[in-house]
Order: sequence, then C-alpha cells, then structure tokens
Amino acid sequence: MREAYHEELASISDGLVEMANLVGSAMGRATSALLDADLQLAESVISANDKVADLQRDVENRAIAVLARQQPVATDLRIVVTSLRMSADLERCGALAQHVAKLARLRFPDQAVPRDLRRTVLEMGQLAQRLMAQAAEVLVTHDIDAALQLERDDDRMDELHRLIFHHLLDERWHHGVETAVDVTLVGRYYERFADHAVSIAHRVVYLVTGEHTDEAAADPPATA
Amino acid sequence: MREAYHEELASISDGLVEMANLVGSAMGRATSALLDADLQLAESVISANDKVADLQRDVENRAIAVLARQQPVATDLRIVVTSLRMSADLERCGALAQHVAKLARLRFPDQAVPRDLRRTVLEMGQLAQRLMAQAAEVLVTHDIDAALQLERDDDRMDELHRLIFHHLLDERWHHGVETAVDVTLVGRYYERFADHAVSIAHRVVYLVTGEHTDEAAADPPATA
Repeated sequence: MREAYHEELASISDGLVEMANLVGSAMGRATSALLDADLQLAESVISANDKVADLQRDVENRAIAVLARQQPVATDLRIVVTSLRMSADLERCGALAQHVAKLARLRFPDQAVPRDLRRTVLEMGQLAQRLMAQAAEVLVTHDIDAALQLERDDDRMDELHRLIFHHLLDERWHHGVETAVDVTLVGRYYERFADHAVSIAHRVVYLVTGEHTDEAAADPPATA
Repeated sequence: MREAYHEELASISDGLVEMANLVGSAMGRATSALLDADLQLAESVISANDKVADLQRDVENRAIAVLARQQPVATDLRIVVTSLRMSADLERCGALAQHVAKLARLRFPDQAVPRDLRRTVLEMGQLAQRLMAQAAEVLVTHDIDAALQLERDDDRMDELHRLIFHHLLDERWHHGVETAVDVTLVGRYYERFADHAVSIAHRVVYLVTGEHTDEAAADPPATA
C-alpha cells in the first residue's frame, strides 16, 4: 500500500514537471513565432496547448484519486493540495504562451514587435523560459536556494517590463497605437508567466520550510 | 460527526461567498475611483484587499482540515477540491480590482479614462460586479440555469472589450499612447475578472452535472 502511495504522489509531481517543461517550451517557441512572424510555428504553439489542458486534468484527477484512496494527512496532504494550485498556475502559463502565439498569428505577415523592442522582448521570452525551467527543477529537487534564486532572477523580468513602458511612453514613440496596444499586452503576458513560475517556487519553499518568502511583487499596474 | 462535517463544508462555502461579495464590491468601488479620480476610494480598495487574501488562506485551511479530519470521498471530495480552485479564482479577482484602483491612484488627480470611453468602462465595471454577484448566488444555490445565464451574460463583457479596442484603433484616437496603454490594461482587468466569475459558474455546473459547459472563450488576445 505504502509503495503504491508514493508512486501516486510521484506521478502527480511528474505531471507537474511535464507541464512546466511543455509551457516553458511553448513560451520559447511563441517568442520565436512573434519575433520572426512565423505563422506555422505560431499555429503549432496554439494547437499544442490542448496537451497542457489534458495534463492539468490528469494531475487533478490523480490528486483526487490519491486523496480518496490514501487519505494523506499532514505534509503529504499539503503536498497534494499545493499540487492542485501549481497545476492551475501551469495551465495559465500555457494560456499565456498561446496568447503570445495568437498575437503573432493576428499580425502575420507583419511583425507585431517593432525593431527597437525586439531585443527586450527576446530577453523576456528567454527569461520566461529559463524561470520555468528553474521552477521545474525546484519541483523535483525541493531545493530552497534554487527557489530563492528564481525569485531574485524574476527581478530582471520586472526591469524588462519597466523598459517596455519606458519605450512606450517615450515621446519619440512613432509606432502608433495598435503597436502600443500589442506591446502592452505582450509585456503583461511575459510578466504574468514569470509570476506563476515564482509562485511555484514560493509554494515549494512554503512546503519545505512552512515559511512564506517575501510575496513576489505580483504584477504592479503597468506604468507604475 | 456527520453534523460537524456538514458544518465544515458549509463554512468553506460561506468563505467563498464572502470572498465573492468582497471582490465584487471592490471592483465596483475601484471603477468609481477610476472614473471619478477619487484617491481616497482607490486607497481604500487597495488596502481592503488584505482581507481577501486572509479569507483565501482561511478557505484553504478549512479545506485542508476537512480533508484531513473527514476524509471525504466522491462528490464531497470534488466539492472540496473545487473550492480550492474557486478560492484561487476569487483571490485573483481581488488582485484585479486592486490593479484598477492602483491605476486610479497612479493618474490622480488626472482621469485615466478619456471622456468618450467612460460609459463603456462604467458598464464593464457594473457588469463585472453583477457577474460576481451571480457567481456568489450560484455558489449558494447550485442553480444550473443561473450558472448558464452567467456564461451568456459574459458575452456582453466580450462585446465591451471589443468596443474598447475599436476606440483604441480608430484613427481618430487622439488621447496619446499613455492613455492607450492604460485603457488596454483596464479592459483586460475587467475581462479577466469576468472570466473568473464564469469559471466559478462553470465549476458549479461540472460539480452538479458532471458535464463541462462550453469552455468560456477565455481571454482572446486583445485585438483579435
């Protein structure tokens, strides 16, 4: 019985890691699709998101099964409950990657991101993917230092987000309102994606130590 | 024992309803603060959000307690697990109301929303509050018809969101880029708020019928 139990807990954790890998990769490819105006790649990101939703349901069903059959208590119970929250975070990240890809599709064959912001958006995309890889690692290792590092690394995302607004609100902005709207939303998609990665790390820290780290400065209003 | 059990389940449900009432009211007041450039009201919405976070933790702790002590199975187990997801939805709605209030504060004493969009934003705010009131009702009554009605009423939010983009992308837009950025984000805050209300209704329908209603057209990319 105990062995089956630990296998079930492990399969929940495996599901979360698989979701993190999928959404990290999706955000990387969505960023390429956006910056290269690559319609085919955008379509592939959009359709691949069904897999994330399927995994989310799997994780939820496994969690419910383990609750019903094994009736975990104490730390194990918290792990299962936390997994449910994490799977919701990861599902949302899949949706955010899909939004980036949909914007690439909407503007095809044009580029949604103007030339002078490409480097910033590329860095946001790469950082988002890296933060999610770190979150996946933290899910496996429960390494507190790595979790805290992830929170620190997210500071760079906030800087990049501010840089986007700096560009948008510069009086020399000459790309028009449509592009301003696109860039505003893209910046928000990356920032929210990173917030979810931080939230996963935060939950692992709480599981292991019982202590909340400083609440990630969760999405301040745009131009603040 | 059974009586204590049902009391515990009821206290989870009460917590969710209280959260829904709080965040609905917060979004209503945030909208007033935004449209009237009312700094004091904005501050009160921002600081009141701690209460939502407290309630979220309460609901989560009650759910964990009932899982540990009562070890529910079948439908009761699904109800508890679903409550966890709903409390996350509602917590997020509190954050979104706070974002609207923070924007009002950031632009004070100016108005963030230009005159020709005030009516649309007012309707979005009122609709958001109404959808959340419906969600609270559905949480109590488990009334499927009311849940399905909520999903239909959300169509109006999508229309209003499209109307915002119609204004933003009209060549006669003369409010500049900063206002365009503000309005883009505000539109998204209301739309996401409504999505969470729909998601709550959707989960109630699933609990009662075991069937998923049509997936709410969850936040299409901005200008799509």
